[in-house]
Amino acid sequence: MSILVVGSVAFDSLKTPFGEREKILGGSATYFSVAASFFTDVRVVAVVGEDFGADEEAVFHEREVDISDLERVAGEKSFYWKGEYGYDLNVAHTLDTQLNVFARFKPKLSKSARESSFLFLGNIQPDLQMEVREQVSARLVAADTMNYWIDSTPRELRRMLTGVDVLVINDSEARALAGEHNLVRAARAVLAMGPKRLVVKRGEYGAATFTQESYFATPAYPLEEVFDPTGAGDSFAGGFMGYLAATNSTDEAAVRRAIIYGSVMASFNVEEFGCERMRRLTYEEINARFRELRAMSHFEEAEMPPF
Amino acid sequence: MSILVVGSVAFDSLKTPFGEREKILGGSATYFSVAASFFTDVRVVAVVGEDFGADEEAVFHEREVDISDLERVAGEKSFYWKGEYGYDLNVAHTLDTQLNVFARFKPKLSKSARESSFLFLGNIQPDLQMEVREQVSARLVAADTMNYWIDSTPRELRRMLTGVDVLVINDSEARALAGEHNLVRAARAVLAMGPKRLVVKRGEYGAATFTQESYFATPAYPLEEVFDPTGAGDSFAGGFMGYLAATNSTDEAAVRRAIIYGSVMASFNVEEFGCERMRRLTYEEINARFRELRAMSHFEEAEMPPF
Repeated sequence: MSILVVGSVAFDSLKTPFGEREKILGGSATYFSVAASFFTDVRVVAVVGEDFGADEEAVFHEREVDISDLERVAGEKSFYWKGEYGYDLNVAHTLDTQLNVFARFKPKLSKSARESSFLFLGNIQPDLQMEVREQVSARLVAADTMNYWIDSTPRELRRMLTGVDVLVINDSEARALAGEHNLVRAARAVLAMGPKRLVVKRGEYGAATFTQESYFATPAYPLEEVFDPTGAGDSFAGGFMGYLAATNSTDEAAVRRAIIYGSVMASFNVEEFGCERMRRLTYEEINARFRELRAMSHFEEAEMPPF
Repeated sequence: MSILVVGSVAFDSLKTPFGEREKILGGSATYFSVAASFFTDVRVVAVVGEDFGADEEAVFHEREVDISDLERVAGEKSFYWKGEYGYDLNVAHTLDTQLNVFARFKPKLSKSARESSFLFLGNIQPDLQMEVREQVSARLVAADTMNYWIDSTPRELRRMLTGVDVLVINDSEARALAGEHNLVRAARAVLAMGPKRLVVKRGEYGAATFTQESYFATPAYPLEEVFDPTGAGDSFAGGFMGYLAATNSTDEAAVRRAIIYGSVMASFNVEEFGCERMRRLTYEEINARFRELRAMSHFEEAEMPPF
């Protein structure tokens, strides 16, 4: 099955303790689609400006991501984000945000886009997520969001949540959305808002997923160096949705493996700036890391008392 | 095999968002030994004052913990700690610490104590840990420590570390000890200080263990309410060491199951104040939670590409 993703295709200027880059290709739809492209066909709905050129197009083409629904606005610039990370790479400090073409973005979906079976609503304004969601009768709809929307557009966000099957957010966002510090209680509160499943990204601590009846958690792949955490959440979502779409399944066993593939894609993505690492990733590497995560988290049965 | 533990047997006054208790039985050796007693024989080396009475003794007796090496000092008081937790239950705020009998504690070990096969050096002054360690030629020696000793007695701590097989500490302590934010690099640095294995307690995120060649991590048992986090680390260590001593094994497979039993004991301990929950715990409950943690963290194999 193919995936439709709506989100940002943008330019990022990044500074981490390990180096910096000026105006490299980024954005939630970019990271998501490159990661998901290892699993299935992906189509991107987004908007860019005149600064989106052949070099940027090449990233999508080489991964065979369909950008025929990518709108281009003449005489304007693409969305731009400038940020910095300290040694605690969990926290990004925003230095500059320029909406540019995104300020007046009205997603226009082709017929093929509207027929997608799997839909991912990347982290953009909840109203835009809703507009796309209403045009697609997908088998599975997943969405991301962030603290900014939780704080500034809570009503729109809550309406959007009634239309999604899976919400994929950070643990701090889950706590903020629920207004509840304990993650188990926060998850229960979020599930009462509409989504049938919550997937919680916990950075270096891994990921977890909750439904009303089930719980699963995995540690993150242990990395000695997180070079650039930008796009970790989106590449996680790309691996997650990619696996579900590739196998056309949404049961608990498939979701668990999808979370592992999400963790694997995120772990590679943060090893270098932007999409650099994912652009030269192989299936051998992906499968090896999947097997390693399994070996790192499995253990045998036991029974007490031992007498 | 039996376990010898040296640590504190103390009185705690605690305040959490859920309630408070005045002068209840606590201390690292108390939590450790009560947890470990579900797995094997445990002997405690510690010191108490005149305020340690029949009620406190009963806790050890009902769990058949051997306190014949517990020194009692007439006319003095036991170690006392007063602390408070906010909604972020990971952080304890110390309001008062009175060393009392602990200020002049010189551990005296009986012949039986010196012949223990498994030794746990609870979180006390590294010099005292060393004194005990040198008197026991155990098969496995594990130790805990805390930021206070990392900061105030770094040289003594480093000497102590050369004599232990397993170090069991919090992730923030591992980072502080190594002077390194990334946990994988921190673990490598700690392993270079002496211990052959590092076990990292991560609170609500679970636990992990590193050797030079292996890595294993488990999520924590998901709890809707952490009532009182006091003793979580010590009850974890008690379950961990208890299982290894009960099975007299220290290989990777046993260590993994031991970490799960540690997580199980900690998860019960934090459900109520002090040792209250552990005092009425059953093997049925312990085994059920072990099985649940296994079901929550296991997943099937997969292979990409799917075509």
